[in-house]
Amino acid sequence: MKSFQSYIPTRIIFGTGTLKELGQIKLPGKRALLCVTDDRLMETLGIQQKVIDLLKVNHIEVVMFDSVTQNPTRKGVVEAALTAKENKCDFFIGLGGGSSIDTAKAASIMMANEGDLWDYAQAGTGGRKEVRGAFPVVTITTTAGTGTECDPWCVITNEDTKEKLDFGTDAVFPVVSIIDPELMLTLPPVLTLYQGFDALFHAIECYIANCSVDFTNIYCIEAITRIVKWLPIVHEDGLDIEARTNISYAANVLCGYAQSLSATISPHIIGQCMSGLYPEFVHGASLIVTAEEYYKMVIEKGYILDKFEAMGEAMGETFVEGKKGYSFLVGLVKLLDKTGMRNLPMSQFGVKKNDIEQIAQNSMTIGFDFDPYTLTKDDIISILEKTYY
Amino acid sequence: MKSFQSYIPTRIIFGTGTLKELGQIKLPGKRALLCVTDDRLMETLGIQQKVIDLLKVNHIEVVMFDSVTQNPTRKGVVEAALTAKENKCDFFIGLGGGSSIDTAKAASIMMANEGDLWDYAQAGTGGRKEVRGAFPVVTITTTAGTGTECDPWCVITNEDTKEKLDFGTDAVFPVVSIIDPELMLTLPPVLTLYQGFDALFHAIECYIANCSVDFTNIYCIEAITRIVKWLPIVHEDGLDIEARTNISYAANVLCGYAQSLSATISPHIIGQCMSGLYPEFVHGASLIVTAEEYYKMVIEKGYILDKFEAMGEAMGETFVEGKKGYSFLVGLVKLLDKTGMRNLPMSQFGVKKNDIEQIAQNSMTIGFDFDPYTLTKDDIISILEKTYY
Repeated sequence: MKSFQSYIPTRIIFGTGTLKELGQIKLPGKRALLCVTDDRLMETLGIQQKVIDLLKVNHIEVVMFDSVTQNPTRKGVVEAALTAKENKCDFFIGLGGGSSIDTAKAASIMMANEGDLWDYAQAGTGGRKEVRGAFPVVTITTTAGTGTECDPWCVITNEDTKEKLDFGTDAVFPVVSIIDPELMLTLPPVLTLYQGFDALFHAIECYIANCSVDFTNIYCIEAITRIVKWLPIVHEDGLDIEARTNISYAANVLCGYAQSLSATISPHIIGQCMSGLYPEFVHGASLIVTAEEYYKMVIEKGYILDKFEAMGEAMGETFVEGKKGYSFLVGLVKLLDKTGMRNLPMSQFGVKKNDIEQIAQNSMTIGFDFDPYTLTKDDIISILEKTYY
Repeated sequence: MKSFQSYIPTRIIFGTGTLKELGQIKLPGKRALLCVTDDRLMETLGIQQKVIDLLKVNHIEVVMFDSVTQNPTRKGVVEAALTAKENKCDFFIGLGGGSSIDTAKAASIMMANEGDLWDYAQAGTGGRKEVRGAFPVVTITTTAGTGTECDPWCVITNEDTKEKLDFGTDAVFPVVSIIDPELMLTLPPVLTLYQGFDALFHAIECYIANCSVDFTNIYCIEAITRIVKWLPIVHEDGLDIEARTNISYAANVLCGYAQSLSATISPHIIGQCMSGLYPEFVHGASLIVTAEEYYKMVIEKGYILDKFEAMGEAMGETFVEGKKGYSFLVGLVKLLDKTGMRNLPMSQFGVKKNDIEQIAQNSMTIGFDFDPYTLTKDDIISILEKTYY
C-alpha cells in the first residue's frame, strides 16, 4: 500500500437549506470581498441579496466585486485583489461557480504574496515561486462541477500567453464551504451536464493518476457511482432535489476530496489548452468532446485495464467477454448517449481544424506528469482529429 | 440525503517509514511536551530516542512526560498540563497509543481553559462548559485502534466519580498525525487483536449511529472490509507489514474520519462503564466480551436490518435465507472464532457478577443519544448476564 499525505482543512457545510448557516457560523474576518460573475446571474436569481442579508445578520461588511469573467483571467484576479486592498477587506467570499471561487482564491494569494500572479504558477511560463500564505476564503457554491470548494486548486487564464493553468497551494483551501443544492435548482440543463461530466472526469482522472492512493479511490469510486446514476435523472428533471443533492455531493464534496489527494491528468490538460485558445469553450464541454476517443485509445493500448474494469463496475456495467476494461467504455458511452452529449461538435465552440497541432503542442509543453502511461504528441493529434467535426 | 458538516483539519502523514518526516515537517511550536506511558515501552523499543533525535534535527526542544497511565485519568492530565506550563511548552506530542495521545489532547485543553478538566466534560457529572481553544497537538501513533489520531475526541477517566468520558471538541484535532505502520510491528498479538476489534467496533457503531450520514458510510464500509480481511492475517504473522499497513489505514485513518463525522453508540458506553469500574479492563476487550450477544439482540429485535445486511456484505458474507441482517452476525462470529476472541470471559478482567446492575445503571445515566433504537436497562442487564462467565 502506497504512503500518502492528506490535508483537507475546509469546514464543509453540506445539504439543502444550509445557506442560512451563513448568518450564524464563525467567519474568518469582518469585511468580505464578495466575488460574483459579471453576468449578474447571482443578482437576478436573488441569491446575492440573500447572501448579503445573511452576512449582515452575522455582522460582516460586504464589498462587491461583480466583474468576474468566465474562465477568469490574471487581469481579473489582479483587479479583485486591488479592490480588496483599497477597501481593506480581510477575507474573500466566492459566490457562484468555479470562476467566482477561483478568482477569490487566486486574489487571496495576491494579498499575501508580492509580485505578479504568474510568478506563482507552477507550470508553463509560470515563475514557480512558492506561495507563502493567503487571505482566508469562504465559498458559497451554486454549481456542481469543479470541486474547488474543497480543494487547494484554482485555475486562471493568462490572456497574454494564452495559458490556462492550475495554481495549487494549501494556503487557498477554503476555510468554510457552504454547499446548498437548493442553490443549484435553477442551473440550466446544458450547464448541469457540462458540470456533471466535468465532475465525472475529475473522479475518473484522479482514480487513474499515478499519484492516486487507496484513500483517493474511495472518493472516486463513490463519485462515479453517484454521477452515473443521478446525472440522467437530473437531466430529465432539474428540480429533482434528491438528484441535485446527489450530484452536488459527488461533484462538490467527493471530487473535491479526490482532487486534494490526487490530480487530474492529460484529458484536463488538453481541454484547458483548448479553453486557453478559445475562452468561450466551456470547461466541461472541452472535456466531453474528446472523452470517448481518448479512453478508447488508452484502453485499446491495454493500459491499466484493472482500473477501467473497476470503474466499469462502479458504473453498473458487467464484464465484456474477452475485453477487459471495455465495461468502462460501455458505461461512458451509455451516459453520453442518455444525456445527449455524445458527438458534441468541437467546431461549435470555435476550434479550427488547423489549431489541432497547436493544442497538442501546448498540452505537451505543460506535460503529463501524473499520467500512468505515455501519450505522444501524435496520440493527442490522433484523438483530436478523430474527434473534430 | 441528510445534511452534514465535515471538519477534519489534521494533516495525516501515513505509510511505512514516514516517522522520518518528523525531522523536516513544519511543527506548530518550538518546545514540546512529549507524552508517553509509564511502562517505558517507547524507551525500551528505542522509538522514544528516535523521536527525540528527529525533533532535535527539526530544532524542537523536548520536555518528557513519562507518567501516562493506561485508561488515563483526570489527575494524570492535570499533571501533564502543569509540567507543560512549568516548562513553557508551546505544543504537545502524544507518542504511543490512545492513552498517550488522549493525555496530550486533554492536557492541551487545560492550557487554554480555566478550572478543572471535568468542567468541560459534556456528559455524566461533567460541567458541560464550552472549550475555548487548546494548544496544538501532534501525534505519533504506535497502535492501531482508537482513531484518536484523526478525530476530535479524547477519553479520560475521573478517578473520583469512576466515570470514563469522551471529550469532543474541534480544538483538539491533532495538527499533524504521523501514522507509520512500521512502529506497530512489535505490538503483542493480544493487543493487536484488542485494538483491531476496537477499530472494527468504531466502524460498525459509527455506521449504525443515528448521526451517521452518507459521507460517514464510505469510511465505515471500507474499514469493515479491510479489518475483516486483514486482522486474521496480522494475527497469524505480526511482522506482515502489508497486513499491519492495512489494519493501520482502517483503524487510524478511516475510523478516525468516521468518528469525526459520526459517533460510537451504546456498546462503547457499556464498555467504558466497565473500564470505569475496572481500569485494568482493556478497552478493546471490554467491547469484545459483549459484541456477539449485543448484536444478536438488536438483530433479533429487527432493528436496521438493511444496515446489518450491508455490513455483512462488506464482511464478504452472503444473505442468510429468510434472515435479513444475519450475514453480519455470521461475519462477526467467524472473525471472533478465527482470532480466538470468541467467548472471552468478562470475569478474567475483574468484573463481578453483582456489578452488572451497576454497569447497566451507569450506562443508562450517560445515555444512548446516538442509538438508532431504544435499549432498556433490562436489555443491557440481559446482554451482560448472557455474556458473563
